[in-house]
Amino acid sequence: MTDGIRAICFDVYGTVVDYRPALIAALERFGATAGLAADWPAIADEWRASERVAMDTVNEIGHWRDLDALRAEGLRTVFGDHDLPEPSDAETAVLVGAWARGRPWPDVPAAMARLRERFLLATLSNSTITTLAAVSRHTGLVWDAVFSSAQAGAYKPAAAPYQRTLGWLAMDPAEVLLVAAHPYDLRAARGHGMRTAFVPRPLEYGPGRLAPTVEDGEVDLVADDFADLATRLGA
Amino acid sequence: MTDGIRAICFDVYGTVVDYRPALIAALERFGATAGLAADWPAIADEWRASERVAMDTVNEIGHWRDLDALRAEGLRTVFGDHDLPEPSDAETAVLVGAWARGRPWPDVPAAMARLRERFLLATLSNSTITTLAAVSRHTGLVWDAVFSSAQAGAYKPAAAPYQRTLGWLAMDPAEVLLVAAHPYDLRAARGHGMRTAFVPRPLEYGPGRLAPTVEDGEVDLVADDFADLATRLGA
Repeated sequence: MTDGIRAICFDVYGTVVDYRPALIAALERFGATAGLAADWPAIADEWRASERVAMDTVNEIGHWRDLDALRAEGLRTVFGDHDLPEPSDAETAVLVGAWARGRPWPDVPAAMARLRERFLLATLSNSTITTLAAVSRHTGLVWDAVFSSAQAGAYKPAAAPYQRTLGWLAMDPAEVLLVAAHPYDLRAARGHGMRTAFVPRPLEYGPGRLAPTVEDGEVDLVADDFADLATRLGA
Repeated sequence: MTDGIRAICFDVYGTVVDYRPALIAALERFGATAGLAADWPAIADEWRASERVAMDTVNEIGHWRDLDALRAEGLRTVFGDHDLPEPSDAETAVLVGAWARGRPWPDVPAAMARLRERFLLATLSNSTITTLAAVSRHTGLVWDAVFSSAQAGAYKPAAAPYQRTLGWLAMDPAEVLLVAAHPYDLRAARGHGMRTAFVPRPLEYGPGRLAPTVEDGEVDLVADDFADLATRLGA
């Protein structure tokens, strides 16, 4: 099912990087400094959830706004919902910057080094180029190419990010594997002829949350984690 | 002249990488294997020169063809000009692949590590994403972002590669520095408001060739080499 793959594209947030602890930590630090008490983990989760709605709206309206802008706006909205004072621009910048300080899931770094021996490794992320660059520096992960939905002017799962990435790689869709923890992303990639690998990240949304799953045959490969993925791809 | 710079974009071929020896070596190996005698350095130089004409034609016609395709076609043309037999597809692929085996100029690796401490580093190259990825692997150079004219559908010095890159970085043009050994590239970047640094590479086209130069005030910075560039940028 995975013969002939030359390049692997990775969803980053949730799949490669565990961002929730970094968001909670940044919000808690902000709260302590500002003398504000709140349910910061709940705020982090609502903030994260607001992103999907905002990206879908951008896709519907067709007027591009990048994810840094959507995250800033989402933060202000969630603060309002919790009767917290509106954060200043500087506070907003610090909190949005927390998205770049997620850690790779523990299985990621060693497996990525193995995979890079055999495959071209790229991001295929809804985040901005500058955020992805900050993540790389913070995590030490090295990409051969950094593809962002910002370069396609639409967010996954819209067609443009997948189609543009395939064009930029100048590869046959079956030569490109998307790795993601999110079935909606994999389904879209498969619709464009890409190969797909699901890696569950049951802790992405925090302990005790229901993690998404895939149906039998819905993807080309289900791996326990990145080490298992590398092994199954012969890396 | 360089205050406020956040990102540095690099022309790759000629500026970062010395490609001519790799082309000559690959052509000489090909000639030895095929039992063909020819002036391989001259063929390498004509092959390289054919690229510019082909890219300008793509820009005029507006029908995108990537640089790997142009290089393959250029090779066949130059072979024909020298009354050499047309290379097979496999031979052409090997020779076009030689473009990815250039070496960084000796001053590059250490200076890039210094620059990366302070700036986001990206390519802004007419080469394909896959060729740039191969160059990175071969040279060990690490980029925060890999921008190719292939993502803009036009070759430098057309406007699209510069304008798209600025949009993807979501930075003010004055926050982005282009480093190149080619004045035409720097003049175009400056026309879009970018900062510009000229680093002469007098050996790009081989010993004894006339290297391009810039006029006083035509660029923001002229550096002797990448070490000098890093020092003058405070890195």
